[in-house]
Amino acid sequence: MLGEKEQILLITDINAHLMNLSFEDENIIFRFLEEDDYNKNYFDLLSNLTSAPNPRFEDWREQFNKIKKSPIFIFVIEDKSKSLIVGSITCLIESKFIRNLGKVSHIEDVVVHLDYRNKKFGSKLVNIAVHFSKKLGCYKIILDARDDAMGFYQRLGFEKRSEGMALYL
Amino acid sequence: MLGEKEQILLITDINAHLMNLSFEDENIIFRFLEEDDYNKNYFDLLSNLTSAPNPRFEDWREQFNKIKKSPIFIFVIEDKSKSLIVGSITCLIESKFIRNLGKVSHIEDVVVHLDYRNKKFGSKLVNIAVHFSKKLGCYKIILDARDDAMGFYQRLGFEKRSEGMALYL
Repeated sequence: MLGEKEQILLITDINAHLMNLSFEDENIIFRFLEEDDYNKNYFDLLSNLTSAPNPRFEDWREQFNKIKKSPIFIFVIEDKSKSLIVGSITCLIESKFIRNLGKVSHIEDVVVHLDYRNKKFGSKLVNIAVHFSKKLGCYKIILDARDDAMGFYQRLGFEKRSEGMALYL
Repeated sequence: MLGEKEQILLITDINAHLMNLSFEDENIIFRFLEEDDYNKNYFDLLSNLTSAPNPRFEDWREQFNKIKKSPIFIFVIEDKSKSLIVGSITCLIESKFIRNLGKVSHIEDVVVHLDYRNKKFGSKLVNIAVHFSKKLGCYKIILDARDDAMGFYQRLGFEKRSEGMALYL
């Protein structure tokens, strides 16, 4: 999606941005998802969102590497005092032919652990995704929200534009 | 996303499926998007959907190759009697950690040329995308529909599940 050099520069910029995000609790940090997060209850966190059975480590590693090679970027929040991943957001970057060969960022799988809610972690995750998508030159960010999450996203600047439809296979 | 061998087998299967789709007019064929479609008014078709300026050929080729290497698959309808692309649908395949390391298919940029409407081309494009997504093992297909397109997708089995929200950058 990006050249290797561009990608390194971008990741450096984003990492600096993540480090600058201040928290009252210095044990709370933002960063990209890492392979070792398998051991930091990442699947326990994802289970707060939907069905997310814990895979075998080899299967995790294979999927992690596949995703890392694709235009999918996952940001997480870690509570370092407990070695736990407590928040996660995914940006899927789609290259298009329309809009001057433009790029769209799809936000997916936004989740904050039940024990860490009401701390603005969700808003910070979305802000990171917005910052990142801008840096990548995306012309828009889209996401599908449940009805009860619309207010949350509206406060962050999103507007309802379409109907989210699904076919289960 | 898939191994090279798996991908070739899948593409062979899908190509057979596409060739079997019968049309009254034998000049109308379904296939994957090809590099030469730049010369078959592909951007004129996309302009029926949204802003889609014609890029320079080198820029088209670069984007075409980038997309070909990513988990994005584009099916088109060609009218061979006129060497024109008259329909297009995009499947973006997202690998996830949730749902047993599952895959979701995102349908994007469904368009049929104004002169070729009311021939069920749209339904056939969606049916191809559904067949393909099943073959790939996706657990669901999602898309964002304008309000006036909901009925069309409902007739094809889709249900409203969420609110499509966007932030323009």
